Amino acid sequence: MKYESVQQAVAALKKFQATMAAYNHALGVLYLDATTAAPSDTWEGRGKTMEIMSEITYNLSTDPGNEELLSYLESHGDELDPQTKREVEVLRKGFDQTRKIPAEEYVAYSVLMNDAQAVWAKAKNEDDFASFAPYLEKIMDYNRKFAGYYNPDMKPYDALLNEYEEGLNMETLDAFFAQLRDTIVPLIAKIQAVPQIEDAFLYKHYPVEIQRKFSDYLMEVLGMDRTHCGIAETEHPYTTNFNNKDVRITTHYYEDNLVSSMFSVVHEGGHALYELGADDCYNYTALSGGVSMGIHESQSRFYENIIGRSRAFVHAIFPKTKELFPQQLEGIDEEMFYRAINKAEPSLIRTEADELTYALHVMVRYEIEKQVIGGTLAVADIPAEWKRLYKEYLGVDVPNDALGCLQDSHWSGGSVGYFPSYALGSAYGPQMLKVMEKELGDIWADVAQGDLSRVTGWLRAHIHRHASFKKPGALFEEVCGKFDASYYTDYLTKKYTELYNL
Amino acid sequence: MKYESVQQAVAALKKFQATMAAYNHALGVLYLDATTAAPSDTWEGRGKTMEIMSEITYNLSTDPGNEELLSYLESHGDELDPQTKREVEVLRKGFDQTRKIPAEEYVAYSVLMNDAQAVWAKAKNEDDFASFAPYLEKIMDYNRKFAGYYNPDMKPYDALLNEYEEGLNMETLDAFFAQLRDTIVPLIAKIQAVPQIEDAFLYKHYPVEIQRKFSDYLMEVLGMDRTHCGIAETEHPYTTNFNNKDVRITTHYYEDNLVSSMFSVVHEGGHALYELGADDCYNYTALSGGVSMGIHESQSRFYENIIGRSRAFVHAIFPKTKELFPQQLEGIDEEMFYRAINKAEPSLIRTEADELTYALHVMVRYEIEKQVIGGTLAVADIPAEWKRLYKEYLGVDVPNDALGCLQDSHWSGGSVGYFPSYALGSAYGPQMLKVMEKELGDIWADVAQGDLSRVTGWLRAHIHRHASFKKPGALFEEVCGKFDASYYTDYLTKKYTELYNL
Repeated sequence: MKYESVQQAVAALKKFQATMAAYNHALGVLYLDATTAAPSDTWEGRGKTMEIMSEITYNLSTDPGNEELLSYLESHGDELDPQTKREVEVLRKGFDQTRKIPAEEYVAYSVLMNDAQAVWAKAKNEDDFASFAPYLEKIMDYNRKFAGYYNPDMKPYDALLNEYEEGLNMETLDAFFAQLRDTIVPLIAKIQAVPQIEDAFLYKHYPVEIQRKFSDYLMEVLGMDRTHCGIAETEHPYTTNFNNKDVRITTHYYEDNLVSSMFSVVHEGGHALYELGADDCYNYTALSGGVSMGIHESQSRFYENIIGRSRAFVHAIFPKTKELFPQQLEGIDEEMFYRAINKAEPSLIRTEADELTYALHVMVRYEIEKQVIGGTLAVADIPAEWKRLYKEYLGVDVPNDALGCLQDSHWSGGSVGYFPSYALGSAYGPQMLKVMEKELGDIWADVAQGDLSRVTGWLRAHIHRHASFKKPGALFEEVCGKFDASYYTDYLTKKYTELYNL
Repeated sequence: MKYESVQQAVAALKKFQATMAAYNHALGVLYLDATTAAPSDTWEGRGKTMEIMSEITYNLSTDPGNEELLSYLESHGDELDPQTKREVEVLRKGFDQTRKIPAEEYVAYSVLMNDAQAVWAKAKNEDDFASFAPYLEKIMDYNRKFAGYYNPDMKPYDALLNEYEEGLNMETLDAFFAQLRDTIVPLIAKIQAVPQIEDAFLYKHYPVEIQRKFSDYLMEVLGMDRTHCGIAETEHPYTTNFNNKDVRITTHYYEDNLVSSMFSVVHEGGHALYELGADDCYNYTALSGGVSMGIHESQSRFYENIIGRSRAFVHAIFPKTKELFPQQLEGIDEEMFYRAINKAEPSLIRTEADELTYALHVMVRYEIEKQVIGGTLAVADIPAEWKRLYKEYLGVDVPNDALGCLQDSHWSGGSVGYFPSYALGSAYGPQMLKVMEKELGDIWADVAQGDLSRVTGWLRAHIHRHASFKKPGALFEEVCGKFDASYYTDYLTKKYTELYNL
């Protein structure tokens, strides 16, 4: 036996995890640099570095020695503390999965990903789905195959869903989305029958310099510790975390749009608060960072929509907002601002969708992925199906594929089964809010004063601090009881009925 | 034998170098992030990552397998192309040196470095040399010991000098500095007897926003390809390069100082042009990047002083400078600007010294290092010796150690024998200029029009493109003939005699 004691094996396990964390940190900073500061034509050298680093981490994580280490620790499970036990469990899952994919398929898939990303970008730019289709077909084929490796007992799409949200399956999602649809589609119809909200003032000229100050202010209201959280500017906003003391968010400023960056900051700020709130003990282990996409989106969308698009929040930030943009907001009052940032209108682009219609955008993608992986829809037929579903769910005509099925980068990046977690995250929020209000009483008086400390404190205590220690489904249930989408549909119905006087 | 063919061994060598380049890229980006964008309190996680990465690269570079690889290639030296041969030579030197230091001493020294940096920063801040002295003593002791490992046949300080500039020794430097002193000290005395130049307008209020635009303009005049070269803001300006297509410079803006950032940009721009000008074939090898500190400083100081502080350059940039800062430069003409940026005046701080007095600052450090490593000066006596030498060479009274021997970070960072390359680089420039002018004819008409293409083209062809392929001394001699400090002293004498009407 290679390991003489549990203590020795645990030390090896911790060292392995710290090493992987170091590589992830390095790769993360390379990506951050690439998207925020790097000159435009520097991708070649960075590509080489990332390729070498990825190969090294792949070799490290598939090293046969890991089998020995994990087996030894599994056979001494009773002697491990709960955290180490969970680390073994998480590492085992990753180890088995990567190992199950034959090395040559893994490499071929990586090469395909790299090519597909460029082909997709060009296809989107030129509205040319046909050029991307052969790549997407291979990606879908690989994912179907990988699903079989991951979990041969599950239906392929269930196995893929399970990758992004442990325990999630089509049965749950079918019911979930049906319920959303039954609520949202009639609400949209009613809204279209009444006068629309005026929001043109949000799209006046908003100088970037002042929007930057606005971001700093919003981060302050969110209670973000700026000694541990930075903000940068990128094409597409995102959040990245190196450990619970070093988190970065990004935003994108548009000179003629106040709300795009405003809600990017609040949304990414929600992701960042989650990462910053993790307990120190999970740093540099496989349990660091948020546990799943669904839980992560539940936090970001909680801050963005439930808090950020509330009357109380608007009350808190409106004076400062008006101080920063006095001309642009001349004649606008709190209520007008509140209504404008909540305007609901079916549209073409998911990332620009409002709180009400957002889930329908996700639903279109879910239906298509389900059919393609299930083998009942050919990749070539995606564009037509996309158009059909947008018309059916949202009532909009998709004029071309660039504004249709080519809009997202997920598929070209190999993420199939990822989209539903966006809707799930949105739906977790209102149920969390109910429990929070039950335990804390009225939180809105605090929010109206720009004080989110009790809200964030509660989320930290119940969600953030656990990082990836608990499984996402179990974590949610422990805090909120069984998941019930009615909290979400009730929330939407109440909010939009009141807002539009339906 | 592990290697079956030269081809196989060369492939292993290239792969090893590419791997090291990838780690250096990752470590470089971590440092760039730390100094430009990272929130203030994120050092802990970054420290862990850098520690792990450093340990991995140390293990990689001292791996016994390298001995086998290098020996095999050395025994097949005739079959190697010149580049590969030089790669083997450079790698051998590094390999032997790292190996010669016992592992426990290497680790102890790394720990000492880490501690010393923090102790020095505090000591400087509190003007408390005594608290830093024990660390400096250990650093000097280690360096004396390492010198013996590196090159037991050389005097210890010569061996250290050789680390930063291959072939450099005290004999050369003693003569060099004596000649500088004989020229510069009388010039300073003469300047002090005539009316001083008026430069107060350089220290008016210069908004950072506009200084940023000024930097962009200066980089344009330098002919910098911005798709391969970025600029960021840091406490202390520096240049870093990941490959010849990805170079970053940094600067520091002061609201009440136009010239600090202006000449940082031109100085770092010179470093950057050197790195950008390397031939592609050296990327991802041990020959990538500038060959020595001396050659590097020769380029940066060439652009900063010989070009950047010339009448021709001022003629080129003055209209735009005045356009950006019309109020600050009201009533100022080209000649007044030229004179102001060349004002010479003995001062306390090396990094703020003018072109004339700069070398004397370096000379003080050289004399002290020489004596301490030679064993004729105790670390405890450095402050007194520093004050004595500043008085003797520059005629200034050093009021305290914070403004004296604690001002530089080099010693606390373990760099002993590094300083002289600054003066050497400054002295290389005028000799290069002579050869350049002989070959290109008048370059100043170009410079006066803001066209540096022939200047940079010449430096690229003779210096930049070679990266680390040639040894620094040989490279210089091939281009300029035997090094002769008279070019430098003549240049200074002529420039300052004319400037001050001496």
